[in-house]
Amino acid sequence: MLRNKVRKTDTLIALNEVYESIQGEGLLVGLPSVFIRLQGCNLRCPWCDQPEALSFSGRKVKLSSLINELKKFTAKHIVITGGEPFAHRELPFIVEFLLSEGYSVQIETNGTLWVEEMEKFAEGIHITCSPKGVAKYYVHPKILKYAKELKFVVDKEFSKEVLKKEEFERFLREGKVVLQPESNRKEMMEKALKIQKELLKECYTVRVIPQVHKCFDLK
Amino acid sequence: MLRNKVRKTDTLIALNEVYESIQGEGLLVGLPSVFIRLQGCNLRCPWCDQPEALSFSGRKVKLSSLINELKKFTAKHIVITGGEPFAHRELPFIVEFLLSEGYSVQIETNGTLWVEEMEKFAEGIHITCSPKGVAKYYVHPKILKYAKELKFVVDKEFSKEVLKKEEFERFLREGKVVLQPESNRKEMMEKALKIQKELLKECYTVRVIPQVHKCFDLK
Repeated sequence: MLRNKVRKTDTLIALNEVYESIQGEGLLVGLPSVFIRLQGCNLRCPWCDQPEALSFSGRKVKLSSLINELKKFTAKHIVITGGEPFAHRELPFIVEFLLSEGYSVQIETNGTLWVEEMEKFAEGIHITCSPKGVAKYYVHPKILKYAKELKFVVDKEFSKEVLKKEEFERFLREGKVVLQPESNRKEMMEKALKIQKELLKECYTVRVIPQVHKCFDLK
Repeated sequence: MLRNKVRKTDTLIALNEVYESIQGEGLLVGLPSVFIRLQGCNLRCPWCDQPEALSFSGRKVKLSSLINELKKFTAKHIVITGGEPFAHRELPFIVEFLLSEGYSVQIETNGTLWVEEMEKFAEGIHITCSPKGVAKYYVHPKILKYAKELKFVVDKEFSKEVLKKEEFERFLREGKVVLQPESNRKEMMEKALKIQKELLKECYTVRVIPQVHKCFDLK
């Protein structure tokens, strides 16, 4: 077991950055968090606010050095983001280590991909799925099964019809849908509020939560 | 019963305003809500953002006409705010009516007062208590018993020591404390983040959530 554990910590991680802030988005808004941004994404959204995290080429670091880097920070809630975390086979190793070190774990994903070894961790972490227009809002069945919230970016393309997909109905019923105005643009906030009201008339309550950290120029 | 019910709807309510927006604060942030602002408060906070709702003199409306006014709106979540809702003896009548009409109810209170007839409703509603410096952060035991969250305005006066009051420990432990930077001032956001980090070192996780509606000039 130890030899196995030692080999895992040598795993190389495509790491963009690690930093501490508050979670500015979604149902866990306001939580003190450390963000692990992985390098590389399988999609290209037109308004992506992390363009330098899209390409899969970039620095690799050992899992052990990532764990060390985390010790500099105070927060015990880790947000694995990107880029697209499920595009990285090492994801289960990272999650396994974080849980064993007592962190709570949240993964921000576009929902199009899955990593089989994540099955044993998926229940005990907070998966925030943000389905994307460039992927026709497709979400992998396993992500649908385990996601704790659906966070939709309200951009030019988004419409209430997107939420009519059968697989999203559970989230609507359970009040687990968040509409996030794209780049905090005023007209997208108005569009989100309009869609929220229309959904209310169909007895669905969704939340409208902007990118709060950006209101205060926080990273 | 009906005569009793008829008499209750004639109850006069000191009403400042009724309007629809999103809940911009606290743990229910982003929820589509109708705000019932009662007229009159027992405290005078230096930075109060609703000065015209402080005095107890003002228009009175029948409960029945308030209920009619609510029908204009779409949201089924009502936030009774003020002024100070627990300074109004009619509060239980309003809550009783709202619950009977199928609304979900949230009350925003400074926590210093209680109305005995609220006991039978308190469990089924969301009480957001915002203890105030001008009242030395005193909170009535019944409010402490039923509140679902403590939302502290981080102003010049506020400090981490306030949270050391024994009666607040449960909320800290359960992650039900929100720090709200006074009037979204940048230096108060920095102060809130600093206190958040200090509390983390004592194994308490609090959320920092500003007044989100004000970031978008929403009422």
